[in-house]
Amino acid sequence: MDVTRQDCAELDAADPLGFARERFSLPAGVIYLDGNSLGALPRATPQRLAEVVAREWGHDLIRSWNTAGWIDLPARVGARIANLIGADADEVVAADSTSVNLFKLASAAVRRNAPRRVVLAEAGDFPTDLYMLQGLEAQLGGAIEFRPLPRQDLIEAIGPEVALVVLTQVNYRTGEVWDMAAVDRRAREAGALTLWDLSHSAGVLDVRLNADGADLAVGCGYKYLNGGPGAPAFLFVAKRLQGDLQTPLSGWMGHAAPFAFADRYEPAAGVRRMLCGTPTILGLAALEEGLKSFDGVSMAEARAKAARLGDLFLERVEARLPGVFSLGCPRAGARRGGQVSLRHPHGYPIMQALIERGVVGDFRAPDVLRFGFAPLYVRHVDAFDAAERLAEVMESGAWREPRYAEVAAVT
Amino acid sequence: MDVTRQDCAELDAADPLGFARERFSLPAGVIYLDGNSLGALPRATPQRLAEVVAREWGHDLIRSWNTAGWIDLPARVGARIANLIGADADEVVAADSTSVNLFKLASAAVRRNAPRRVVLAEAGDFPTDLYMLQGLEAQLGGAIEFRPLPRQDLIEAIGPEVALVVLTQVNYRTGEVWDMAAVDRRAREAGALTLWDLSHSAGVLDVRLNADGADLAVGCGYKYLNGGPGAPAFLFVAKRLQGDLQTPLSGWMGHAAPFAFADRYEPAAGVRRMLCGTPTILGLAALEEGLKSFDGVSMAEARAKAARLGDLFLERVEARLPGVFSLGCPRAGARRGGQVSLRHPHGYPIMQALIERGVVGDFRAPDVLRFGFAPLYVRHVDAFDAAERLAEVMESGAWREPRYAEVAAVT
Repeated sequence: MDVTRQDCAELDAADPLGFARERFSLPAGVIYLDGNSLGALPRATPQRLAEVVAREWGHDLIRSWNTAGWIDLPARVGARIANLIGADADEVVAADSTSVNLFKLASAAVRRNAPRRVVLAEAGDFPTDLYMLQGLEAQLGGAIEFRPLPRQDLIEAIGPEVALVVLTQVNYRTGEVWDMAAVDRRAREAGALTLWDLSHSAGVLDVRLNADGADLAVGCGYKYLNGGPGAPAFLFVAKRLQGDLQTPLSGWMGHAAPFAFADRYEPAAGVRRMLCGTPTILGLAALEEGLKSFDGVSMAEARAKAARLGDLFLERVEARLPGVFSLGCPRAGARRGGQVSLRHPHGYPIMQALIERGVVGDFRAPDVLRFGFAPLYVRHVDAFDAAERLAEVMESGAWREPRYAEVAAVT
Repeated sequence: MDVTRQDCAELDAADPLGFARERFSLPAGVIYLDGNSLGALPRATPQRLAEVVAREWGHDLIRSWNTAGWIDLPARVGARIANLIGADADEVVAADSTSVNLFKLASAAVRRNAPRRVVLAEAGDFPTDLYMLQGLEAQLGGAIEFRPLPRQDLIEAIGPEVALVVLTQVNYRTGEVWDMAAVDRRAREAGALTLWDLSHSAGVLDVRLNADGADLAVGCGYKYLNGGPGAPAFLFVAKRLQGDLQTPLSGWMGHAAPFAFADRYEPAAGVRRMLCGTPTILGLAALEEGLKSFDGVSMAEARAKAARLGDLFLERVEARLPGVFSLGCPRAGARRGGQVSLRHPHGYPIMQALIERGVVGDFRAPDVLRFGFAPLYVRHVDAFDAAERLAEVMESGAWREPRYAEVAAVT
């Protein structure tokens, strides 16, 4: 029997994560299903930033590097992230962008694993990951070979010539989840390293890097971690590898003694050697507040809720709009990340019309409508209502209005 | 005849840059002479950040990439910086850290200039610049040779095997200024490229990149540009080189069509190809406000004022404390950047005692006390008073109190 809105309201009332929604400031009248692209604003962030700016920067000025603990922010924020991704506190730092962090770790990994020269990735993975590996390949000339492969060929291809496997755990377009343990196992047997991009999994999946045998990871601070637009990214290096990896981006913050101002670089012990330039304090402070939204949240529960919300949305779309969309993601919640993808040849104007009706998802070329279910602030009634509004857009033909085709999409 | 405090007050009253000080929020009772490390807080920044957070992020959410122009911030902020450093608006972008930007440009330059393999830099230059070049050398194996040289040997060494010369225009320890035009001329004749680190010159010197024939530059947003702690950095590529340079950090924001989500990297036309990951919006917004502090400011006047303040401070220190310090910087204002350096074997506790008396400079190992004269907010009376307080610290022996030796210095 079909689920009703009342059923959804009851699920919300019983939701063990219901308390978390109050931690966010959400605009009235909007169902925000784009937390997989830009997480919502935590209520505590404006005040925290105001204090960092007025007191720490404006009043205490340079002293705040010590007195406000600015210098420790990359490690302190990293420790909070570690807690969400199955890593130890001293295996993660927050710094730079996902792209830059991927370059650091991929460079270090291929250097360690020379003379193996093949770097595998998934064709169609998030572009910046592919681009960074292409950049590394071009820089190193013949020393490595970057080989993007179709998803289904990937695990089989992990052989003795492979130095590194780079995969986004949750595909940004399809939401499909890799079996991290299986890939790590295969890589370990073949002598290759794994580098996971957790941009679409940190904060929504119950990621277990160490339990699954992952070697390296990077990820994004501005999606499910709610760090704000362009928030600092993070990186993970398994403890067993930390002494063994050298980043070419060997900046002063990764030095064993940055304030000795020595001419020779000496890498810090541990994951701190993967830091590079001066940390971006405003961004890190906002990210720290974003991460506090997870206090008391079980990632197993969050993951289950995200899957349930996606299932619910899909059921309602199938019930209300049979045959209108094709499925752009796995149907089974357990094989999906936090997002649902629908495909439609007119996906772009449809999404614009839907956004104008207060349901914010996004569009990815060529034909994908994405709906993200950030489990900390999206409710069951939101999933229900979003499907209703989508049905209104489709049934009324509103999306055919020419103005919806006009604006170019961004991120 | 000695300058008096009254003379200084008259200089301040007649100062054509006097209007700029009102643009900053400075703590009461503090003479802030560390703007060369962390610039002061512009009065407009807290409100701007509050709006970015509450309205652009919190309310408009993902739409702000378009509606608030987030996506254009790296170029928009870059254009403002260009205006201060003698570059064209489309030659500069703001992004990442100084360290990362230096890596991008140095990598691109040595690739373009192969098979030349020598990269020159100044021994004792700011550590992160040296470290990044060491990292690049280690990554590229024998393909390049990084050669740090003493200052006096550097220009002579620019010969036919040199691919790139990397120099900080103003030395962080001594404040000494390179003759940019002379280095660029020599490099051009020898077929080498120049990469200037403007961290200690942008916003205080009258930098003229194009007039002086510079090829490449990077610099810091959080010193004289007042962008806040760990603000985004910037980079400059002369127009004639833009089509010719490929960064290995080829992230999606440098792609010709980032939102086409293609698998193959195609560099954007122009300097935008040097962008990498998603821009850090909070940091860029704060930096943009910091740069507005320069509206209506002539950099020639700013540079002259900084030199005058430094001269004044040195005169007063020499008059009040003859023979107590040795000079750690050029005596002639024209050969110095915005800072004055004094040397003393007990420089660290002396600086701590001085800070406690409300004069904030900083200390650099092994024995350098630095005093920065940011011309937008430091007054002539501040330079006078700072010398008086330093004299009090030295004459009273207050710096010998054991507690001043205890705290470790940071940045």
